[in-house]
Amino acid sequence: MSSLHGQNLLASNRSSQGSDTFHATDPSTQTPLEPTFAEATSSEIDLAMTLAEKAFWHYRKVEDSAKAAFLRAIADGLDQHVEDIAARAQLETALPAARLHGEMGRTTNQLRMFADLISSPDYRDIRIDTALPERQPPRPDLRRVLIAMGPVVVFGASNFPLAFSVAGGDTASALAAGCPVVVKAHPAHPGTSELVAEVILEAAQKTSMPAGVFSLVHGRSHEVGLALVRHPHTAAVGFTGSLRAGRALFDAASSRPTPIPVYAEMGSTNPMFVLPGALAERADAIAEGLAQSVNLGVGQFCTNPGVIIGQKGDALDAFVNKAANYFQASDPGTMLYSGVHSAYQDALKRARDTAGVQVAGETTGASGLQATAAIMRTDAQTFAANDDLQEEIFGPATLIVESDLEQMLELAKSLSGHLTATIHGTEAELPQYQALIEVLETKVGRLIFNGFPTGVEVCSAMNHGGPYPATTDMRTTSVGTAAIERFLRPICYQGFPQTALPAHVRD
Amino acid sequence: MSSLHGQNLLASNRSSQGSDTFHATDPSTQTPLEPTFAEATSSEIDLAMTLAEKAFWHYRKVEDSAKAAFLRAIADGLDQHVEDIAARAQLETALPAARLHGEMGRTTNQLRMFADLISSPDYRDIRIDTALPERQPPRPDLRRVLIAMGPVVVFGASNFPLAFSVAGGDTASALAAGCPVVVKAHPAHPGTSELVAEVILEAAQKTSMPAGVFSLVHGRSHEVGLALVRHPHTAAVGFTGSLRAGRALFDAASSRPTPIPVYAEMGSTNPMFVLPGALAERADAIAEGLAQSVNLGVGQFCTNPGVIIGQKGDALDAFVNKAANYFQASDPGTMLYSGVHSAYQDALKRARDTAGVQVAGETTGASGLQATAAIMRTDAQTFAANDDLQEEIFGPATLIVESDLEQMLELAKSLSGHLTATIHGTEAELPQYQALIEVLETKVGRLIFNGFPTGVEVCSAMNHGGPYPATTDMRTTSVGTAAIERFLRPICYQGFPQTALPAHVRD
Repeated sequence: MSSLHGQNLLASNRSSQGSDTFHATDPSTQTPLEPTFAEATSSEIDLAMTLAEKAFWHYRKVEDSAKAAFLRAIADGLDQHVEDIAARAQLETALPAARLHGEMGRTTNQLRMFADLISSPDYRDIRIDTALPERQPPRPDLRRVLIAMGPVVVFGASNFPLAFSVAGGDTASALAAGCPVVVKAHPAHPGTSELVAEVILEAAQKTSMPAGVFSLVHGRSHEVGLALVRHPHTAAVGFTGSLRAGRALFDAASSRPTPIPVYAEMGSTNPMFVLPGALAERADAIAEGLAQSVNLGVGQFCTNPGVIIGQKGDALDAFVNKAANYFQASDPGTMLYSGVHSAYQDALKRARDTAGVQVAGETTGASGLQATAAIMRTDAQTFAANDDLQEEIFGPATLIVESDLEQMLELAKSLSGHLTATIHGTEAELPQYQALIEVLETKVGRLIFNGFPTGVEVCSAMNHGGPYPATTDMRTTSVGTAAIERFLRPICYQGFPQTALPAHVRD
Repeated sequence: MSSLHGQNLLASNRSSQGSDTFHATDPSTQTPLEPTFAEATSSEIDLAMTLAEKAFWHYRKVEDSAKAAFLRAIADGLDQHVEDIAARAQLETALPAARLHGEMGRTTNQLRMFADLISSPDYRDIRIDTALPERQPPRPDLRRVLIAMGPVVVFGASNFPLAFSVAGGDTASALAAGCPVVVKAHPAHPGTSELVAEVILEAAQKTSMPAGVFSLVHGRSHEVGLALVRHPHTAAVGFTGSLRAGRALFDAASSRPTPIPVYAEMGSTNPMFVLPGALAERADAIAEGLAQSVNLGVGQFCTNPGVIIGQKGDALDAFVNKAANYFQASDPGTMLYSGVHSAYQDALKRARDTAGVQVAGETTGASGLQATAAIMRTDAQTFAANDDLQEEIFGPATLIVESDLEQMLELAKSLSGHLTATIHGTEAELPQYQALIEVLETKVGRLIFNGFPTGVEVCSAMNHGGPYPATTDMRTTSVGTAAIERFLRPICYQGFPQTALPAHVRD
């Protein structure tokens, strides 16, 4: 691939009108990386959205088979350039090459999955009630179908530079739905974003998609994001990131003259309940699995298990010790960028300094942007009395809460919304915990038995969502085929002649 | 039925703690009707929501067949008491008996339709991806299903005292979904609301539903509605009414610490395009149909056609004269209540006083709360230059806009969101208007050919919704079976043993 240019890509036009620039930083060495990137100006943002709106009039009518070819061309282009993209992503994120290659596989799989999905009209949930002319009053012919909503703004996520960024799940599902996409690149990996954007633009050209079906804008400032959300042509927003940023975008979208939906996935603590039978049967395996799940990707996953509730006693103590050993034995990993690192260190310090919280085990020797992974423990009263302890610590930290049976249920009831909750138990003891299951059903988007919440399968049955503050819209998922529903809305044709109906709703 | 008591119904408990009272008024005579009704206090509102939340824990697990029996028992109870309910509704709304009996048929049909819908688990959109233990990494068993969202607040609509009020489509779809309902009665028909609420409560008792599955609160003040929307136990809101009120509820819901969805259907102007071929073929029939559609229910329908766009010339002049004759020959009807009447008279005056607008025909002799029905005409420039003319006039008024072919398309492009748009044309001329159809697809929830937008069929393929400001959520419908989706959200069970899964997601 050609060398990086650092400009905004307004359709295929390079643009850098503004004087504000920034650069990526190598988190391993904390040194700046070339080139400088141009922060988008308001007129560049306006042009990106205007091009997207113009493209919408064509793209919404593009045949599903042609949209599928576009998605597959993006996937093929990513496969072709995977080495260059992964190399730049590794520089910008300090994520290991194997992880980045795996994430690219996930990204291309998602693109091809949505291409397959729209190869059948099932995704349009077509409902036909034919005319009943003899009935009094007569019933007209009615045909309901889901159609594309309009231009979608997607925010790249820092922790998934590929699978939840420029060509990630939000972009793939919006393009599959028939919506042009304007991506706001995450400023921590602007070079990776540019490389992926060029692949998308090349695929758009190869498959004759309308200009403006895709644009990429850069920006570190909140203003760029807010301007995109507030732009009158924006019809919906996809976001993965922090609660604070997600809520700010939601508030901006809700207070527009014409409000629009914001699908913000803002992470969660992902509580895990470890039942006595499970501890008796396989405490070591759970302790090892927990340590792996917490530390995966230096703990920078939305589904990272941050609170573990167990029943106090010798079995739990032994479990905590085992898990602590895994933490102590692990090497510190480098975090994505300095902002994530300092937020993590602050949150960890606040948790460990809380009266009643002890550190059971932690990694040693962290330097630079490396994270000190930590497993802490506390009692149910302390946990219940400190709202801070229920908030997500984005990074490799987890907190064991010692409770009794009754406290376990009360604690579950007091939870806010989460992406996931997990129960480790034996099938034999599970019937005693029916009340716990029922409480957790109202709190989360995914309920896991004897597994770990990290590793979100991309498939039809996945739900990666959940009640606020896990997301701003618990009716939706950002992973799996159902993610396309976020960018579709129904229309009903009444009494239309066959010739004037879209092909997929004809007889 | 027993005589009216005028109290709030917090589950089956009558309550009137506050000192604020109000009464209904007979719109025909503008005289007050007995009894007085007790405005709900904040502690009564809190109790209604607390009871709903308690009920939710049971009701969400009630078998679909038992929920269906509950819905059918409500329908049976309404059938049994139809005479009393329609008599009171006629007093409170001045709607004719035949209309109210028809509306009751629609109401009971809706209840039975949702009972039928939940008799099959299809409404839960169940998706199962079974485990792939041999794959690397292994795929766990994943089962996604839609579940009830939580307690729902429903606002009764003034213009449909039955079908969009206490036991209307919002209530029926929320109860079918497994959500307890708290209805805020519309203060224009509190007695009708009480009678219907008593039927629901009796049905709940007969079918052993949990206490708190239904409550009714009264209130004229905005504070009652806002308190319901802001209550922490409220999970979603259904509303049919004005843009101002709907937007206020949406803003309150969006700015909660935990935002919730508001499904507000706020009406629209429902533009109708009359093409030259249609005028040549059947101008008189369209003029008659238009006059009937505009005047149906004294024009108090969200789908009432308020703007008619035609191409200027002799054919359009003749059409307008024919329609004007129908308006002049019609008798003035009494509107629902004084607030609707004065808002209508004000909006009509503003429209007819606009420079460039002429009255083509109107009813005469209106007195009291009777409406002067009016058909007005203007030119495309005047229409484009006056935003006011694009706003809904809730009542029996419509505006003919004379344009040429190009202006017709520009005018369509300039439209905001509407519930419906209609095209009258011949099948032969329709291909020339493909661009018009495509523009209208992006503006409305339902697109009608050679019909009238009033008379919203209740069925699977109906979409009664549309882009803002027609509604606050264009992804949804408030009429037809898809209305249930508003009160459901997904959850995914991962790796759960069969015995711990809800029955409908087992193998």
